[in-house]
Parts: sequence; C-alpha cells; structure tokens
Amino acid sequence: MRLVILGGVAAGTKAASRARRLNPELEITVYQEEPEPSISECGLPYFLSGVVRKREVLIARTPEQFAERDIEVLVRHRVERIDAAGKKLSVRDLRTGEAFDDTYDRLIIATGARAVLPPIPGAELEGVFKLRFLTDSDEIGSYIEERTPGKATVVGGGYIGLEVAENLCRLGLEVSLIEGEDRVALAYGPEVSENVEVELKANGVGVYTGKKVDEFTGKGRVEGVKFGDRELETDLAIVGIGIRPNVELAEEAGVEIGSTGAILVDRHMKTSVPDIWAAGDCVETINLTSGRPAWVPLGDTANQMGRVAGTNAATGYETLEFPGILSTGIFKVFDLGVGKTGLSEKDATEAGFEVVSAGLWAHDRAAYYPDAQKVFLKLIADRATGRLLGAEAAGSGADKLTDICATALWGRLSYPDLVNIDLAYAPPYGPALSPVIQAATILSGKFDRAREGVRASE
Amino acid sequence: MRLVILGGVAAGTKAASRARRLNPELEITVYQEEPEPSISECGLPYFLSGVVRKREVLIARTPEQFAERDIEVLVRHRVERIDAAGKKLSVRDLRTGEAFDDTYDRLIIATGARAVLPPIPGAELEGVFKLRFLTDSDEIGSYIEERTPGKATVVGGGYIGLEVAENLCRLGLEVSLIEGEDRVALAYGPEVSENVEVELKANGVGVYTGKKVDEFTGKGRVEGVKFGDRELETDLAIVGIGIRPNVELAEEAGVEIGSTGAILVDRHMKTSVPDIWAAGDCVETINLTSGRPAWVPLGDTANQMGRVAGTNAATGYETLEFPGILSTGIFKVFDLGVGKTGLSEKDATEAGFEVVSAGLWAHDRAAYYPDAQKVFLKLIADRATGRLLGAEAAGSGADKLTDICATALWGRLSYPDLVNIDLAYAPPYGPALSPVIQAATILSGKFDRAREGVRASE
Repeated sequence: MRLVILGGVAAGTKAASRARRLNPELEITVYQEEPEPSISECGLPYFLSGVVRKREVLIARTPEQFAERDIEVLVRHRVERIDAAGKKLSVRDLRTGEAFDDTYDRLIIATGARAVLPPIPGAELEGVFKLRFLTDSDEIGSYIEERTPGKATVVGGGYIGLEVAENLCRLGLEVSLIEGEDRVALAYGPEVSENVEVELKANGVGVYTGKKVDEFTGKGRVEGVKFGDRELETDLAIVGIGIRPNVELAEEAGVEIGSTGAILVDRHMKTSVPDIWAAGDCVETINLTSGRPAWVPLGDTANQMGRVAGTNAATGYETLEFPGILSTGIFKVFDLGVGKTGLSEKDATEAGFEVVSAGLWAHDRAAYYPDAQKVFLKLIADRATGRLLGAEAAGSGADKLTDICATALWGRLSYPDLVNIDLAYAPPYGPALSPVIQAATILSGKFDRAREGVRASE
Repeated sequence: MRLVILGGVAAGTKAASRARRLNPELEITVYQEEPEPSISECGLPYFLSGVVRKREVLIARTPEQFAERDIEVLVRHRVERIDAAGKKLSVRDLRTGEAFDDTYDRLIIATGARAVLPPIPGAELEGVFKLRFLTDSDEIGSYIEERTPGKATVVGGGYIGLEVAENLCRLGLEVSLIEGEDRVALAYGPEVSENVEVELKANGVGVYTGKKVDEFTGKGRVEGVKFGDRELETDLAIVGIGIRPNVELAEEAGVEIGSTGAILVDRHMKTSVPDIWAAGDCVETINLTSGRPAWVPLGDTANQMGRVAGTNAATGYETLEFPGILSTGIFKVFDLGVGKTGLSEKDATEAGFEVVSAGLWAHDRAAYYPDAQKVFLKLIADRATGRLLGAEAAGSGADKLTDICATALWGRLSYPDLVNIDLAYAPPYGPALSPVIQAATILSGKFDRAREGVRASE
C-alpha cells in the first residue's frame, strides 16, 4: 500500500508522521517543491529580523530525519499532474528538470497556499518581495545585506504585514505601512485597529490607511511607492496581501473546489475523488460559529487537519473527524498582543446574527500588583439566544483571554455561562474577576435592559 | 425595605453594591468586624513584603465611598445574634463596647472564614502569627520592624504558606517551610509538588515535608520550632493551616449547615431560613465535576456569589443562580506559576471515577522563539466517558493553560473535543499545537490503546 503526500510543510508532514505511526507497512512518499520540508512559516517574520537567529530551528525535521522514520521526503520535486482514474502522478525533479511517473494507492493533497503579488505596476522590480517561504526570507535577507536599504514599505495591514513591519523596524529600517482599507487589522473591530495603529506609530512606523498602492517606481530596482496623491521613497517593499490556495493540480484531477476557492473536503478530510484526502492551507472548512464555509490558512489548523487526513488515509476508514474552525488567531505587533476568536461584529452581522457586544479595558493582574497593564476585551453575543459568537482582545494577556473565549465558543457557551465561570485568580495573574467575567456581566446588563425594553413596549 | 449584610469583604460588599444598583429604594447596612471593608485579602502576602507598597490600594472602597452610594458600612461592629423569627439583630460596637438592636427585612450572611492556630503548644507565643486579615499583616509588619527577625518558619505548604514563604524571602529572611503531609501543594499531583519544592529550594527555602510541628519554643517570644527529632531556630512563625468558615452565628439562628461545615445554600444563595441569603467564604457550594458539596473559600468565587445573593435579596425573586464551582485555583511561588481546575487524580479517584491522565512538558511559545520556557500540563479524564475531569499546570503560562481547561470543564468537554480545538497560535504565544491539544492527543492515544486492549481480550 503506497501513500503519497503532496506538500511537506505543516499538514503534509503531520499526515506522514501520523500515517507512519498507525501503519508501519505503508510506503510513504512526500513531494515538496521548496528545498526544505517541515518549515514553521509563522516564524519567518522573526527570522527576517534575527529575533530567530538560526535557520535550522525553523525546520522541525529534515528529509534525513524523516528517512529514519521510513518516510521518503523528496524536496525540489513538483507533482505536475494527478491521474485520479489511473492513480498515477507526473512528477518533475526541479534540480535536474527530469520528469517521471509515480503511482499511489492513497493520496493526500497538502499543497498549501501561495502569496501572490497583486497586479500593481512595478511589482516586478527588484526589491519588491512577498514573504511566504523560507526562500523568500533568504532573498529578502540577501537583498538587505547587499543593498542596505534605509526605507522600507509594507503593503497590507493584516497580521503578516504587521509582523513584518515590526521586524523590519528591528533591523533599523524606517518603515511605512500602507493599507487599502480604512484601518489595519480588518478582521477585528475598530477599537482593536485603533490600538494597533497607535502601537505602530509609537514605534515609528508611518501608517497610511485607505490608500491603495498605485505603482512601485524605480529603474530596475524599487525606489518609490505611489498611492493616492503621495509618493514615498522606498528601498524595499514587502507585499503582505494576496494569498491563494494551491488548488490547480487538484482541480485538474477533478477534485471539487468549494465556494471559497479552496478544496472541498468532508469532516474526514476526504475530497470528492476516491482515495484522495486533502489538508492544510489548500482546503476549506466550516466556521463553526456561522456554519459557513471558511478558508483560513493557519499553521495550527493545518497541523490538526494533517493529523486527521493522515489517520484516515492510513486506516482507510473514517477514523477521525476534523469538525471545523472558530477562526481563532493572534499576532504580536511590537509590545501589543492582539487575538480574536469566532466572528467579529461585522462578520456576525453579515452572517445574519443580530449582535450585542460589550467591550472593556481591564487589568492583566490585580490593579495593585506591580506592573499591572491594561488589556481590552470585547465579547460578541447573539441577541436571539445569548450564545457567544466571538471575542477580541488586545494588550497584556490577550492570548489568555482569546483562548478562554475560544474554548467557550468551542463549547458553545452563552454569556450567562461566563458570568459565573470559575477561572483561576491570584493577584499576579488577573483581577479578582477575569475580564471575561466582567465583560459577560456587562453583556448580561445589556440583555436585561433589552428585555425590560421589550416588556415596557408590550 | 431594609437589607442588612453581615460581613464587608468580597461577597458582602459585592452584594451591597449589586443590591443598591438594582433597588435604589432599599436601606442597606453592612456590618463588619475588621476596621476596613472591601479588602483584597489575596493581596496580603504581597503587602507583607512590600511588593504591594501602599495599604490603601488593597482597599477597594472605603466606608465613605460606600456612603456616597447610599450604603451604610459600619466597621468594628460585630453582630452577636440573629433572631430569625423576629428579624432582629443584636449588634456590638467594638469601639465603644456598646450593644444595640437592629432589624432587617432581608439578611445576607457573608461572615467569611477565619484562620485558626492549630493546637500546637507554644502557638500563643509572641511572634507566632496567622495571616488572614489586614490587621494580621499589620501586626506581622510591626513585629518584623521592631524585632528584625533573621529566621522565619512557615507552617503549611498550601498556597498561602507558599506565597508567604516567597514574600518573607523577599524581606531577606531565612525561611523554612514545614508541611505535615509528604509533599507541598497537596491539591495537586506529585509532579507539580516536586516542581514547587525544587523552586522553593532554588530560592533558598528550607523545605521539610512529612513533619508535623510539635511545639513552638521560647520564653514569651518564639525562639524555635520542634518537629519530629529536629528543632529549628526561628524568630518568626506564620501558620498557614487551619481555616474555618464563620458559621456559628448562622447556626445559632437555625440556618442549616452543610456536610463541609459551611452554610448550606441553594442555587440562589438562599439559606434554609426565610429571608436569609448567604455568600462567600462562609458557604458551601457544589463541585460541578464531582457533583459533591465543596467548600473552597476564594475571593473570586466570593465575588460571584455576592453578586447572586445581592441580586436575589434585592429583588426578592430567584433572579440569578450560582451554579457551583470547578475548584479552579492558581498561585505563584517565586518564578513558578501553578494552577489547577477540576479534580486531581486523587480527588477523581475518591469521587468514584476511573481516571486516565496525560502529563507533558511543553514550551510556552514556539521553541525557536526567544526566551521560550517550559510548562507542565496534566489532563485528567474519565475512562468511562472521556469527559475532562481536571487539569493542572506549572510553569510559564500556567495561568493560560489552567483557564483554557477551566473553560473546557465549564463546558463539560471531553478529551476528543480538545484534540481539534481552535486555540490562538503565533510564535510568541505558544507552540503550533497548544500544550492542551498535545496533552489531549496523548490522552486520545491512551484511550485508543485501552479500547484495543478490550477488543483484543474479547
């Protein structure tokens, strides 16, 4: 029995390891275009700046280490065609350019996603980069070393753009960030966006929102960036917008694509084609709060999906399920941690909910305990049922509050459940009543008043 | 309508504030024996050492501030008798010694708990203290200032003893800690206890476990402590064992006492006597995981109970419910954070569960991210149903892991729910798969093997 896995980053290598553990008899081959498998792509912004110093630490396992576990990992190999009827693969060895055929009994597609440069004139200039792979990071690093740029522009105010902006600042560059929408961190509510902008500016980043980049200028090499009626000088530009699932290969093989543009899978990570599973950044899943299809390419989810796909492909049964996601996420920008789970107010409204929300600033420990810092938390609930729909947090301990709320969403809790929840309290770790409890209590008051309003009008 | 509240710490003042907000017409009086109301008792170990510098910051609200909200707070007043049939109270003004009568329409008993010195010979010596009230802290502080003790002994290795040990070390004292059982932090499993002992010893605390204190020695003032065949010199002893609910007044009034020795209340915080509610450290509640009565006197729970009792006493209806507790807790000892929720393996076994557990050491952020530190997590599940019964964590980010698990217990999640839970990941905030997910995955393997074992033996 031969299992072939296309893609060797988070989902692909997790699937391979899991399949090997469950079935020592399987032949397992992983094909991977990039020169290194098992990369932590989330670490790349930090590798760029040297916060993470050694390249090796981003590589969880080398092909040699996989070989020791009897998993063949072939890097610099591109699978160019899947013949699903014949269970054949056309593969190209990118080092030699040679093509060859392979066969599979079971296949896992974990081809991930790619960053694409948007069709901005000048995007092909030297010095304009995207950051997705370790090779991108290498190229940017070399460029910085050779050209010693003084000014850098980051295009896109999502979490990758924000992390890159911070890390370019660490390298001593003068950084500008340009965001097409009217605020950064658009997945969050306006309070969080405002705090992120304050943090950026406090750290010397020029922030330009509501501006689409019209052109990168320069002769051969980037020298400027034009947007609206402005032009900034820039020696380096990193574009952090435009990411797409790699689905072309699957699509050509007849695998059904979902409404988000990523591969459609069932709860067992099975595609529409027999003996083909898919996992990771190339697949779509379900947002468990809205019940809608969602494509949220993130490393942790890719790992979890890889485990499910690897298990089911190894056993051939519907052994494990991947239920879906909450759309939980977190990033750090300078000293500000920012996290979310579930739906933002905008998401929730678009998904047809009438929302009630409560936001507050609280302390991250007892107010009297040394170095107490502030943290913002917003809870978003469904007016009809009281069910928690989402949460966002910014500030010290935002990761903890986000994870508490993610767990509450996972358990489909409602705001009254959170008023009396028994969380851990001691002065160094929080206020006597967690910000989650405080926010739920405020929500509770809003629901009470809404009910009184209904009663009064009856 | 007159509401009287006995006790003005966490539960009592919360109940008063809540009642005032809901019902502006109520007459509200709070009687409090200690000279200050609304004290954060959890902050006392830190006030002792000066980590918390100002006395005022531990007082959330003064009697004058309560008066502005039309709540009468009478400190240094002791209620000596409740006549439940006549709805009368006998009160003594401790400043003048005068007694007077009062009446109530509704009563909330929030008399808290007290530390008691165990019947150890010499416990009455000068220099032997307990730490429960701000006045205790004042006395210890004065003693340290006047006598400049060099050696201190802490009796009891629970969280109060551990916090006190750390804070005495901060004052430059040579500290010994004596625990009667064979390990400290007995509410936790042995792995956590071991780590706490290592942390204590690394910070110079002498740790003596399995030793009951036989005697404090000295002439008038404490000079030594005898246990087993040892005697240590000591200039100061703080006893952190022996805490009891203050229920005598309630009991004399005919209020039913529960099996834990604390006041029995229903989900609405109502006692067995009409028009009397109770809340805080003097009441017993339900451990939601075991379903058994529990008495766990903690400030955060007292606040939550106070809110429920205050609301229901103000409205006269069963407006709010307090569902029970998980027995979540956390403490810091030097640089080690230690938290728990639900049942320990020992608790769970005693409650009749057959347990499966998984413990692991993980990182608190991506392993390659600077300053990554270790954290221990153990998950405890019910073999019959897979339901999560408890968790404990020690190390960096133990508070976050504890709160995630507390929320999971609150939502009655099972280990398979935690394998795919969508928590927040970015390199500065955790490994790609949260330690919670890692531990749940290990648990999952143990359940699988157990099932295979059953199948094989069939």
